[in-house]
Amino acid sequence: MSEDDSGFPTDYEIAQDADLEHITDVVEPFGLTEDDLELYGDYKAKLSMDAVERLKDQRSEDSNLVLVTGMTPTPMGEGKTVTTVGLGQAFNHTGRQAMIAIREPSLGPVFGIKGGAAGGGYSQVLPMEDINLHFTGDIHALTAAHNLISAMLDAHISKGNELNIDPNNISWKRAIDMNDRALRNMVIGLGGESGGQTREASFLLTAASELMAVLALADSLEDLKERVGRIIVAYDEEGEPVTVDDIEATGAATILLRDALKPNVVQTLEGTPALVHAGPFANIAHGTNSLIADQAAFGMADWVLTEAGFGSDLGAEKFLNVVSRFGDVEPSAIVLVSSVRALKYHGKDMWPADMDELEEPDVEAVEAGLENLDKHAANLQQFGVPVVVSINRFPQDTDEEIEAVVDHCESQGIPAGVSNVFSEGGEGGVELVEKITGAVEESEADFEFLYDTEESIKSKVETVATEIYGADGVNYVDGAEDDIERMEELGLDDMPIVMSKTFHSFSDDPSKKGVPKDWTLDVREVYPSAGAGFLVVLTGDVMDLPGLPGRPAAADMDIDADGTISGLF
Amino acid sequence: MSEDDSGFPTDYEIAQDADLEHITDVVEPFGLTEDDLELYGDYKAKLSMDAVERLKDQRSEDSNLVLVTGMTPTPMGEGKTVTTVGLGQAFNHTGRQAMIAIREPSLGPVFGIKGGAAGGGYSQVLPMEDINLHFTGDIHALTAAHNLISAMLDAHISKGNELNIDPNNISWKRAIDMNDRALRNMVIGLGGESGGQTREASFLLTAASELMAVLALADSLEDLKERVGRIIVAYDEEGEPVTVDDIEATGAATILLRDALKPNVVQTLEGTPALVHAGPFANIAHGTNSLIADQAAFGMADWVLTEAGFGSDLGAEKFLNVVSRFGDVEPSAIVLVSSVRALKYHGKDMWPADMDELEEPDVEAVEAGLENLDKHAANLQQFGVPVVVSINRFPQDTDEEIEAVVDHCESQGIPAGVSNVFSEGGEGGVELVEKITGAVEESEADFEFLYDTEESIKSKVETVATEIYGADGVNYVDGAEDDIERMEELGLDDMPIVMSKTFHSFSDDPSKKGVPKDWTLDVREVYPSAGAGFLVVLTGDVMDLPGLPGRPAAADMDIDADGTISGLF
Repeated sequence: MSEDDSGFPTDYEIAQDADLEHITDVVEPFGLTEDDLELYGDYKAKLSMDAVERLKDQRSEDSNLVLVTGMTPTPMGEGKTVTTVGLGQAFNHTGRQAMIAIREPSLGPVFGIKGGAAGGGYSQVLPMEDINLHFTGDIHALTAAHNLISAMLDAHISKGNELNIDPNNISWKRAIDMNDRALRNMVIGLGGESGGQTREASFLLTAASELMAVLALADSLEDLKERVGRIIVAYDEEGEPVTVDDIEATGAATILLRDALKPNVVQTLEGTPALVHAGPFANIAHGTNSLIADQAAFGMADWVLTEAGFGSDLGAEKFLNVVSRFGDVEPSAIVLVSSVRALKYHGKDMWPADMDELEEPDVEAVEAGLENLDKHAANLQQFGVPVVVSINRFPQDTDEEIEAVVDHCESQGIPAGVSNVFSEGGEGGVELVEKITGAVEESEADFEFLYDTEESIKSKVETVATEIYGADGVNYVDGAEDDIERMEELGLDDMPIVMSKTFHSFSDDPSKKGVPKDWTLDVREVYPSAGAGFLVVLTGDVMDLPGLPGRPAAADMDIDADGTISGLF
Repeated sequence: MSEDDSGFPTDYEIAQDADLEHITDVVEPFGLTEDDLELYGDYKAKLSMDAVERLKDQRSEDSNLVLVTGMTPTPMGEGKTVTTVGLGQAFNHTGRQAMIAIREPSLGPVFGIKGGAAGGGYSQVLPMEDINLHFTGDIHALTAAHNLISAMLDAHISKGNELNIDPNNISWKRAIDMNDRALRNMVIGLGGESGGQTREASFLLTAASELMAVLALADSLEDLKERVGRIIVAYDEEGEPVTVDDIEATGAATILLRDALKPNVVQTLEGTPALVHAGPFANIAHGTNSLIADQAAFGMADWVLTEAGFGSDLGAEKFLNVVSRFGDVEPSAIVLVSSVRALKYHGKDMWPADMDELEEPDVEAVEAGLENLDKHAANLQQFGVPVVVSINRFPQDTDEEIEAVVDHCESQGIPAGVSNVFSEGGEGGVELVEKITGAVEESEADFEFLYDTEESIKSKVETVATEIYGADGVNYVDGAEDDIERMEELGLDDMPIVMSKTFHSFSDDPSKKGVPKDWTLDVREVYPSAGAGFLVVLTGDVMDLPGLPGRPAAADMDIDADGTISGLF
């Protein structure tokens, strides 16, 4: 997020002005020493696996996870990362020990549309350039491991194909961390025998690789290797799955991920330590930072702030039904990020979004949009976790608009507070911290999943569709019913589900704002992410490899002789 | 190189037994402090650009560069890296200060055929696993920068193509650091408009990217950016070159290479510091580590050991005619690595190589093979630099065979010594050090290039073909003469040349051993590497993307729960 009108400094200017502490000094008050770190320069480090194991054991019974999610956002996003980072600072500001655990950004998209992914304003994680570029190399390692599996798969096919792999039934794509639309659909293996087997193929963005989901869910190197080995890469001529284990790529691919599994630690502008680790998609995967980072964070602080992607119907639903199930990470409270502009977007039933129009004061539109916020809050309360609404304040918001939101939430019995962490840093989140801690104290935690994994696939899909999305029911179109039958035959039906749906609406139609009524969800395809341990349920086309615009952000980027970068943010 | 018969420990066992010093302690005696380093864990670091600039200025007038090259090798290689590393240790062993500067290995090939590239025996650079895997991320950064240029190029074409780029005349491939033959030839941009412009395309190994050559030749960030901008990626409909500058990718690509330009420092088994940085191909590029590492090394020690790829007809010729011309790095001495088995290979006129047969003692074959060694020595002496022959001793070599080589060299007036650095470390290279320092002292250095860049392209090609390869002349076949004419029209003819030829023979026929007579060199294609600053002259097909064998080395690799890797070496 960047704010360069009205004299407020840009994210980059704020970041440049920051005095960073050596990362060893940042983590020392949280019980870590230099021996626990593998340094990448002075301001980035990985936690050693020994440290991770020790931290897991150190988790206090009083530790609290705060999950930050959001209402259905405008295309600009409503500030979940800013809120997460700001709240981490705010907790520390109030004398509580808090850690932040968020996703690491992909490199490729940075070159398409200007803007990084490390918070914003006075609630940023640093060093922002490094975090948005190569960082500690995790995503490069994932790309390499992914493409090693691809190369071994095609080499197997072209050198005898002992496993009888069907070249027309290969589910494993190749990976690249770059917005390159020309690689979405291609024919590879041309040029005669030296080029191998000719076949159709695709690249996906590395963040969309199942390996990214696997890395984010593994709780040890051993678990990582087991998950890698289970990944289904293709099917043989009889339709039986062929796994990474079958093509003997498990050990080598895991070797390439050995360091990537270690959580990265950096700091916020106010010196709060942040674990920035793994970044799976929130549509075809679960959309949260690594479980291992969460688990390590619990050993460092009593409060852990983490974030789930997109609106709560996507990221938080997956966190609560999938991630919480896999790891011991049930939230004590959920922060639901809202904004006046997003409420107006729903109140005006606007599509596509006109961001300028949303800057105009309009209390009635805000009030008309509250039903979207209410639905998100009610959805989350179903999991038995207290919900606190955060109103991420933007400069153009009027007091009247803000009050309308606060009053409404309080009338519904939902604690709500204004977040000024973008403009004020941690101090701007103190009110919210008090609301969160109050809600946790008052709550009788009684967390429960929305479905059992033993239920049928259709039952699980229908639960999410009706209880979260508000659909009347589900239609299975294209080959979805065949897919479900096949998953049942293969014994892959007892996993949690990951629904891929547009984030622009509760429904599967991005133009529908507020709380769409009288609609049914179309399910088009179901496939297994057997390594990650979930079934992916597609409701529409998934874009897993972005493209560059006609004149990408990269065209305005530069670096001078002394290494100073411009145009990146 | 690995040696696991006869009870001698493997490279990996030796490496595992090593007690590494913290990298800060390794460089401290060479005038560097912690502030000069950007640490990557305890045993790897990058030199900061401030340190590099200071070191460049600190170069002593007495500094000596020793270039290690070799005779025409067997397919197993004759131990140039082992010799370079071992000599670095040996110089320090004799109380002289020495630095090692060698190439960094690619990751992809490690998974194809077993074996790393970090020396061997008791002359290794460490930590070998890291160096052979992700190391400090340089090659990943190059892959990303390369593919950003590719994506911007195709986005330009599919979004209006203002530069009128001819989709059938694109010279810039995509890059991957993986042996993946299926990506050698492909059709990309399928799937309708969303997939961009349909066209034929290829991937190359990242080490073969012109960006790798550019990185290895740049002497500052500014120079790097200028070189990146000059790279020709395509031609327009009028046949005019389109550069990275033209598609506005220079700044962003250079941003991605900012850290990769900084030399990496590690240590040998005996604690000698080694700069391991950049690894361009030695056929379509110049095949040596970075110039910036050489320049930094001169500021740290009076003796700098560096290495050039393949036999001296390829790597050393390019070092002397290209690299020395671009940077101030003229060698004081050249070490010509030979082995008894390579001499037998030539003496027996053997093709393909039967490595078992070459283990059998055969003094006559050794003597018959000396003409290959002599031709390499005579070639190198043309540059006005003293040559010292190193005989890399293998366990099966007999004293009689070794003596035959030493006696012959001495009869020719060429100092020669046995190298036992593989089995003994630095101590095994002391004799050789004395020969080298003696040769340098006696020499009246009078370095000269073999050709002037102002000569015509044909004149330059013919000089290398006749004076280095021993050809009678040159034939221009296919479109080579048109290429040359085009280079002249574009004003690109005044650059040094980089010849791409098989390394298995002095000639362009890999089956011809010894010193082939009565042959002419076929030149097939000439193209510019305008960013690197040379013309590439192809004499045959170039394999710029290796493939995996039917059962690659990766299939035997594993990692256990505590992170211990097996099968990598």
